[in-house]
This record gives sequence, C-alpha cells and structure tokens, in this order.
Amino acid sequence: MTALDETMNAIGVAAKDAARAMRAASAAAKNRALIQAADNIDAARADILRVNAAEVAAAREAGKTNAFIDRMALDDGRIDGVCSALRDIAALDDPVGKTLREWNRPNGLSIARVAAPIGVVAVIYESRPNVTVDAAAIALKAGNAVILRGGSECIETNGALYKCFRNACADAGLPETAAQFITTPDRAAVGALLSGLDGAVDLVIPRGGKSLVARVQSDARAPVLSHLDGICHVYIDGDADPEKAVAIAVNSKMRRTGVCGAAETLLIDKGALDRLWPPIAAALREAGCELRVDDAIHALDSAAGKATEEDFQTEYLDAVISVAAVDGVAGAVAHIARYGSGHTETIVTENADAADQFVAGVDSAIVLVNASTQFADGGEFGLGAEIGIATGRLHARGPVGVEELTTYKNVVRGEGQIRP
Amino acid sequence: MTALDETMNAIGVAAKDAARAMRAASAAAKNRALIQAADNIDAARADILRVNAAEVAAAREAGKTNAFIDRMALDDGRIDGVCSALRDIAALDDPVGKTLREWNRPNGLSIARVAAPIGVVAVIYESRPNVTVDAAAIALKAGNAVILRGGSECIETNGALYKCFRNACADAGLPETAAQFITTPDRAAVGALLSGLDGAVDLVIPRGGKSLVARVQSDARAPVLSHLDGICHVYIDGDADPEKAVAIAVNSKMRRTGVCGAAETLLIDKGALDRLWPPIAAALREAGCELRVDDAIHALDSAAGKATEEDFQTEYLDAVISVAAVDGVAGAVAHIARYGSGHTETIVTENADAADQFVAGVDSAIVLVNASTQFADGGEFGLGAEIGIATGRLHARGPVGVEELTTYKNVVRGEGQIRP
Repeated sequence: MTALDETMNAIGVAAKDAARAMRAASAAAKNRALIQAADNIDAARADILRVNAAEVAAAREAGKTNAFIDRMALDDGRIDGVCSALRDIAALDDPVGKTLREWNRPNGLSIARVAAPIGVVAVIYESRPNVTVDAAAIALKAGNAVILRGGSECIETNGALYKCFRNACADAGLPETAAQFITTPDRAAVGALLSGLDGAVDLVIPRGGKSLVARVQSDARAPVLSHLDGICHVYIDGDADPEKAVAIAVNSKMRRTGVCGAAETLLIDKGALDRLWPPIAAALREAGCELRVDDAIHALDSAAGKATEEDFQTEYLDAVISVAAVDGVAGAVAHIARYGSGHTETIVTENADAADQFVAGVDSAIVLVNASTQFADGGEFGLGAEIGIATGRLHARGPVGVEELTTYKNVVRGEGQIRP
Repeated sequence: MTALDETMNAIGVAAKDAARAMRAASAAAKNRALIQAADNIDAARADILRVNAAEVAAAREAGKTNAFIDRMALDDGRIDGVCSALRDIAALDDPVGKTLREWNRPNGLSIARVAAPIGVVAVIYESRPNVTVDAAAIALKAGNAVILRGGSECIETNGALYKCFRNACADAGLPETAAQFITTPDRAAVGALLSGLDGAVDLVIPRGGKSLVARVQSDARAPVLSHLDGICHVYIDGDADPEKAVAIAVNSKMRRTGVCGAAETLLIDKGALDRLWPPIAAALREAGCELRVDDAIHALDSAAGKATEEDFQTEYLDAVISVAAVDGVAGAVAHIARYGSGHTETIVTENADAADQFVAGVDSAIVLVNASTQFADGGEFGLGAEIGIATGRLHARGPVGVEELTTYKNVVRGEGQIRP
C-alpha cells in the first residue's frame, strides 16, 4: 500500500465514523453549522478572494481558457451566492427521520419506511469552488459525511472555503470530519476515491466535464449519481399551438446553450411540417441558431444545413440544433429511444392523448409537456438546492437535492410478536 | 468477440427492445400473461416433473448434497406453490404509472414523480427452479424485461418452466422476449451478463449462496440489489419484558436457522445480565442452541462456550448463537455498527426512549422493536411477492417486491412556460 493509499484509507475510516455521528445529529446542529459556515466565509472573504486571485493568475499563466478561468474565479457576488446558498439549505426541511410510508400488518406489526442518511458521499469536481461548499452543505443537511476532491487549479481556494465549513461543523458540535477535503494534488487520490476506500464510500457524485463523468461512471466501485450527456429533445406535435411551439423551441435551445437541459434536437410531426416549420425556423435563425435538418425538412428549406447521423448523437452545447421530421408521437418516442441520453424531453401539443402517449413512452429522467427543457434544474423543481442531475435508473432521477441524498430504513414496531 | 458474446449481446438487444414494449404494456395484459403462465405450468405439470426427476437423479449421481437436491427437486406441492405465486402476483396492484408525489410551482408548472419500470433486470440464481418463474413474474409485473440465468443442474427444469412463461407472454400480446432464459451451461454467460451486455442491463439481482452474491457484487457493471450476509442481532435492553425477551431471542434464532433473517448474535444490557441471562440461556439450551458467550457472561455461566472475535463476525445459519454483554443501547448500537451486516436487528424493551434511540442509531435495512428478526421477509411485510432482500444503501432496502423493481420519472406539465 502506498503512502497515498494509507492517507486515503484513513480519510475513509474518518468519514465512516463521522457518518455514524451524523446519523444522530439534530436538525438544529446541522443548520447551525450551515449558517455558521456562511458567516465564516463572509468573514474570511478578503482572504478567500486573495487566495483565489493568485490561483486565477497562475491558471492564466498556464494558458487555461477563458471559460475555465470564469468557472474558477470568485468575486464578491459569487461569495455572496455561496453564503446565501448555505443559508437557504439551512432553511430547508430536514429530510432525515421523515416517514415516507407506513402500513400495518394483520399480526399487529406496524411497518414504516423512514428516511435515513446514505452514509459517506464522495464528490469529485473540477474547477468551480462553489461546489466545495454547495456539495458539502447538501450532503451534510441530509445527514451524510462527505469527502470532497476538487480540481487542482483551485486547491487553495477550495481549501480556504473548506476551512470555513469545517470550523463551522466543529463549532456546531458536529464531527470536524463530517466534511473532508482532499488536499493532495496527486491524481491517484481520485483513483483511490473511486476504488471506494475499502468500502467506506457509499455514493460517488461527479461534477464536471464529460471526461470526468465518464471516468467516474466507468471506474467507481460505489453507486454513482450523474449524467454523462444531455441530448435533450423538443417534439412539436401536429396539434401544437404554433406560438407555444416557437417559444418553447427557441427557449429550450437558446436561453443558455451550455447547460445540460438545453435542447439539442428538434423533432417535428411530419404531417404539420408545412405549417410549423417556417415560423420555428425563422425564430431560431433570428435568435442566431444554426439549423441542421434531415432530408424531409431540407426539401422544404434548402437554406438549412444537412444533418448527418452524427448530428443526432451530438450534444452541441452551442447555438446549433439538429432537426428531424417524425411520424407523430410514436415516431418521436422511437427517435428519442434511439438517440436520447435519458435526460430531458418535451412535447408541445394541445392534444391530451398525444401528451399522455409521449409521457408514457419516453423513458427519460424528466419528461415535460408544453414547457421548455431548460426547466431541468433543481431550483426550478423547487428542491431548494441541487447537487446535480442524475440520468441513471436507480434511486434518484433528474435533479438531486437534499431528499435524494437520503435512503430509507424499514422500522417495524411490535409488542412481542414472534413468527409462527 | 466470441460466439457466446455475440449470443449474449443479442439477448441484451432483445431485452432492451422488450423493455421498451413492456413500458407501454397494460396492467391487464401483464396480469393475463401471469395467470396464463400459471395455467400453462399446471397443464405441463407431468412433463416438468419428469424433466426435473431426471435432473435430480443426475445431481444425486454427481454427488450433490441432500440440501442441494432438496432445493432443486419439484413435486406437486411445489408446482402448486409456483402457480399460486403467479396468481398472487397477478392480483397485486400495478405499480407502473402511480403518482408517488406531486407538487406545483409558482410559475404554474405541475411536477409529478411517476413510477416507471427500471428496464432490463438480470437475475442470476442457483438451483431453485421456482426462482425462474417468481423472478420473471415480479420483474414483468413491474413492467421490466428480465434475463434469467439459473444453475446448470436445473437447466432443463428451468427451461420447461420458462417455456410456459414465454408462451403465456406471447398469448397475452407481450413480447416473447419480455423474459429470456439463458440455455447455455457455459459459465462465461454469467460473466457476459455481469459485464452488462453493452449497457443493456439496468439491474442485477443474484439469488443464491454467498460466493455467487460476492461475485455479482464485485463484478457487475450495473447496480446490484442483494445481501451478502445476514448477521442479525437481538438486543435485550435492561427494560425488556423478560417473557418477550425469551420468546423473541428463541424465535429469532431457532424458528429457522438457515434463513438470512435468523439472529446470529444476542446482545444483553450488562446492567440486567443477572436477571435476564438465566431464563434466556435456559430457553435457548432447551431449544437446542449452542451458546458462545463473552467473558462477562461466562463469569455468570461457565457452562457456556467462549466466543472468539470470529464468532461475532460469523453468520452461522445453524443452531449456534454468539452472545455479548453491552453497555445499554449505545453499546448495542456500537456493537452492531462494528459487526453487523446491515440486514436486520431487533431491540426488546418496554422503554420507548430506548427503542427510539436504537431505531435512530442502528443503520440496517430493517430495524425492529419487540418483534422477531425472522419477520425480515417480503411476505411478512405484505409486499405480496419478493425477489430478495437488499442491504445496499441506494434505491431499495430490505425486502424487494414489485414496487421496488420500479423507478420514477419526473413528469412536468405546463401551458407553454419558458424559462426567463
């Protein structure tokens, strides 16, 4: 075992111990820690910004892209955002101990499913320092211990934020190791985390680019909540209201093109192409979107680019959209089953049967009717805070908030029953 | 790619296609298939028993143990059991499409979490032929496609049962491949299933001995619902009613010693040892149970065997119990955290605070108060049917029935909302 493995395994042991203490932590203590963490960060603001400025300068010197720099750079507004997120999470209902369902048995036993913390959550992320605090806060609110591993370019910034969080935990009487931050830049630490630290890690959540998520999905020994792609579809049904169709298509694609809930493919009922394509195409072009269309649409609109097979498999995250004509709801469902990533799809229709058929047939984490795909977001769902969006099939699908970071136990109460 | 890999991948593709059709299958069609399968098995009874008798004879000749033979052998009673299980599952509520939770957003969007099938479930099991039908029925009722791989000693028996099931699916208008049975005895087929068949497998459920479960847990690429050990604890609190304590200790250990919910360790509040140990020890001895006790108890009862560290880590599945004196509920919780397997634990106490402290502190799939650990069973929970017991932390814990084989999707309904 290498020295790093030993360090990492010790982190795992400390996390398991902390998880045990966190299971019994009161809502009041957890909320006190979150509010104190906000106060600590507010008080340490000048130091945090100084440390961050130095790391930003180093990243610039190392030739990082502007987008990368933008993600890692803090300013007063972002620090304010981190602090208010902490206070918002403190204000949420405590999920632990909630009775999710209960029933009685003929022998007098009463059975309840009661929400319980998952245990040890590992969060592996890239260059956004706010994730250090957000992820720790959401995991802790749900009664978990958390192990944080952020991108090496922000290690000092993250460390400064983490210190504020850790001290707040200690002040609130929670274990100091309720959140642990991995300070070594050694990339092997990620491998150790993914190996599960000798069974200590119960859940892994990656936050970052596709290569990080793909690596975590492929290598993690513990369950993973994540999404790899967001190839989201807007289906315009023949019974769509044209105004809604235009507004939802443009908003789904163009409101923000870089988010995972942005639409990448537009599907149009082929029976209504003549009527619906011209206003939608005009609005998308007006918004600055490049169109890549299939043959049926190209026959109507030769100014549009031609889509290849690859286009329908591509998450552009840019002002480009692929477009296909499909044979009604069944055609849309079949296209989505073939090319979709299980993230978010919407149908625009005034026909309730078509909507129901779409909702039943599309097997994605989020299925919308007459609303923009850009609502695929924990804030928009009202979860209060989200740690990411999951497209796996088990446990939690869609936005993952505080409740989704709990599991349940079966609590059975009797008066001496034995089994015949 | 080997020929086997090609065959297996084709099974994966067929299962994904079947899962797509199953998502839209009506409750009526699914129930018709289940009832028809029972009728088919009833009608094919003589053939099935003949095939089974030949396999039992071969297994005997191959020197299999009596316990093994008992698990694989069918008779009229067991066939009746298989048929009535099918009819019981048909009679259960359909879980698919149930609204689990719904809420509205200030912008007028309504959000619902709606139960949906998981997709493709692989069940890998050993020599019990009833699993072929039970597992297929539970998975299908929840709208899933299932891939079955049973022990090679029963391959003909399983095949005969499977044929009845497959024909029933076809007759009910469900895909014939809603359930697929792997007929090759080649053990590499299990490896292929565990590799996930190119992403086709959404969930793996092992049913069988510890080595099978351990292999599945270690090698499966898809999530696994399973339990490896059932080191279940009975904690007798100082405030226990002595009669309940005796009855629950004896029933938890001795009702059936070979089931995963059987108690393996008895913990006794050390403040009440003098009073509680004699009647419990007498009753366990009377029932034929060997006692292996720690030093504190040995000082009271030198006739009992001494427990080693290993005893507390052992799932005996036999008429043997390890016993330790602990320091109240906190001591019991700490012992269980150290030695437990997260399966099932019970407290015997008349003290409501002690019960609450135990329920909050013990982090097992099933936590009981004043009831036998042998209630850890889907039938006893009223689930109607169970495919196994899960001790993992995500998705489902405890008995896994039809509802636990569903997931959910987020259905968002609007009237044209776009995101500002």
